[in-house]
Amino acid sequence: MKTRIGILGYGNLGKGTEIAVAAADDMELAAVFTRRDPSAVTLLTEGVPVVNVSEIEQWTDKIDVLVLCGGSATDLPVQTPKYAGLFHVIDSFDTHARIPEHFANVDAAAKAGGKVAMISVGWDPGLFSLNRVYANAILPEGKDYTFWGKGVSQGHSDAVRRIEGVKNAKQYTIPVETALEAVRSGSNPELTTRDKHLRECFVVLEEGADAAKVEKEIKEMPNYFADYETIVHFISEEELLRDHAGMAHGGFVFRTGATGVNKEHKHVIEYSLKLDSNPEFTTSVIIAYARAIKRLADEGQTGAKTVLDIPPAYLCRQSAEELRAHFL
Amino acid sequence: MKTRIGILGYGNLGKGTEIAVAAADDMELAAVFTRRDPSAVTLLTEGVPVVNVSEIEQWTDKIDVLVLCGGSATDLPVQTPKYAGLFHVIDSFDTHARIPEHFANVDAAAKAGGKVAMISVGWDPGLFSLNRVYANAILPEGKDYTFWGKGVSQGHSDAVRRIEGVKNAKQYTIPVETALEAVRSGSNPELTTRDKHLRECFVVLEEGADAAKVEKEIKEMPNYFADYETIVHFISEEELLRDHAGMAHGGFVFRTGATGVNKEHKHVIEYSLKLDSNPEFTTSVIIAYARAIKRLADEGQTGAKTVLDIPPAYLCRQSAEELRAHFL
Repeated sequence: MKTRIGILGYGNLGKGTEIAVAAADDMELAAVFTRRDPSAVTLLTEGVPVVNVSEIEQWTDKIDVLVLCGGSATDLPVQTPKYAGLFHVIDSFDTHARIPEHFANVDAAAKAGGKVAMISVGWDPGLFSLNRVYANAILPEGKDYTFWGKGVSQGHSDAVRRIEGVKNAKQYTIPVETALEAVRSGSNPELTTRDKHLRECFVVLEEGADAAKVEKEIKEMPNYFADYETIVHFISEEELLRDHAGMAHGGFVFRTGATGVNKEHKHVIEYSLKLDSNPEFTTSVIIAYARAIKRLADEGQTGAKTVLDIPPAYLCRQSAEELRAHFL
Repeated sequence: MKTRIGILGYGNLGKGTEIAVAAADDMELAAVFTRRDPSAVTLLTEGVPVVNVSEIEQWTDKIDVLVLCGGSATDLPVQTPKYAGLFHVIDSFDTHARIPEHFANVDAAAKAGGKVAMISVGWDPGLFSLNRVYANAILPEGKDYTFWGKGVSQGHSDAVRRIEGVKNAKQYTIPVETALEAVRSGSNPELTTRDKHLRECFVVLEEGADAAKVEKEIKEMPNYFADYETIVHFISEEELLRDHAGMAHGGFVFRTGATGVNKEHKHVIEYSLKLDSNPEFTTSVIIAYARAIKRLADEGQTGAKTVLDIPPAYLCRQSAEELRAHFL
């Protein structure tokens, strides 16, 4: 019997989840829930009902795991605790500073409802978190480095768009190659976020706007750009839509540390992702963990979980015997 | 109360374990067991007893986790099942093809004794296995690549040493840079082990030996060298001891895969290690998992385990709350 997946919210993450479910032969999409008029939503998959979220409580016995595809700013802090009382749920909550609070809220709701609820699943938080934790446990004396990109930062793109005279914009966060090399060398450099990244902006001006003034305003914007090496390109709206519509992203996690009687042996652990589609990769991680949730639920576990709580074998379709024989 | 570690076998892995225990403030070394005369063994740590292995049964209530530091060829297939009946144990059994058989033997012994026994802990098998499993679960459609090196291959070094006229030798396995780049590009190349690696030999000749004949014999040796690009250097014994005594190693694990309605989005997951000391890094992994074994044992679990069965949080000294707040 396949694991029945429900999706709440049909934006980029919802579509990515739909695609990831289709690629998993042990899963099937049971329904998509939306706040919109269901007749206005067309899925990629044929024959799957689109249901208004007001009717979701009628689906509690037809869904094994509900994937919450809302945003971290306002949707998930409300939705995850709410639906964790009714379904086994999973979200990609990614506001790092608010994870402890979100975990506590979701944990209470899931325990009250006798459900399993995973939060903050994706690649950061998610796979990058796993790598930080494994590497720290193995090299207790060392330094951690996380680099993001090359990829679009939504927050920085929005900040550029708010400048007077800017019609549209995309901002890429790009790791600085010399900083990556310094980390790889094992020299344990001290690096701030701004030492590690440069910012490249592609900007479409409103007619008659002053390019020099816009460029100055971007480069001097506090917090967002002032402390960074920032490159600004002015392009046409046509070019922006043609060349910068993609959702590629990625990044690097390092831990460098030393062992030995006199700490004379250096070690470098490096993990990196190069992703053509941030939402599709994120939801591929989510669907692997949805499989784990089903197993935890079948074992009778309840409460909030993160990627740090899940044995790796639980993500896999294969049996423990197959994994030991072929992957260990 | 600190976790009390015992070490069986005081070679490179035993010494590495001793160093890793010293770096873990929640652990202490209780005893080192040896097949040798204990008076002939001097530890790095003062005040720790060295005990002949014939007396090990007197230590069952003084050791929380026994680290088995023997070799995979002949020691561990006997030792791990034997001691899994008496202690919670961990080993670094690395003969991939025999893991299922070793697991079954150790599992039966550990269950009979009510103990937890982890096998095949280190970096390959170990961390590389984890990365293969996570990446396969996330990208079900894709290809796996493992590269080893740069590092010394003991088996290949031994093969060179057996050639007539060779006094001493070291063989390095080195990843081929163009093969790494082809994988990183996401082009999913078909690569054999020999496409991925070249072999570099540093050879000390016996007096009067024929260098050309030795080089030919190395390069034409079936299985070991004949199918590989092989580089042979002749050096003095002094140079070999001075420049090639290190135990550096490392390697790369990749999975490249695609998502999307038409599999139009490529993704590259890359994990790599650059290690100055193979045994010290291996034992750093072992000590992190020894911490997990203690927790499993405290929960009342029994039987054989691998890295695929252990939640990442179990490797850490920090509480679940600390991990969520700082690493997720």
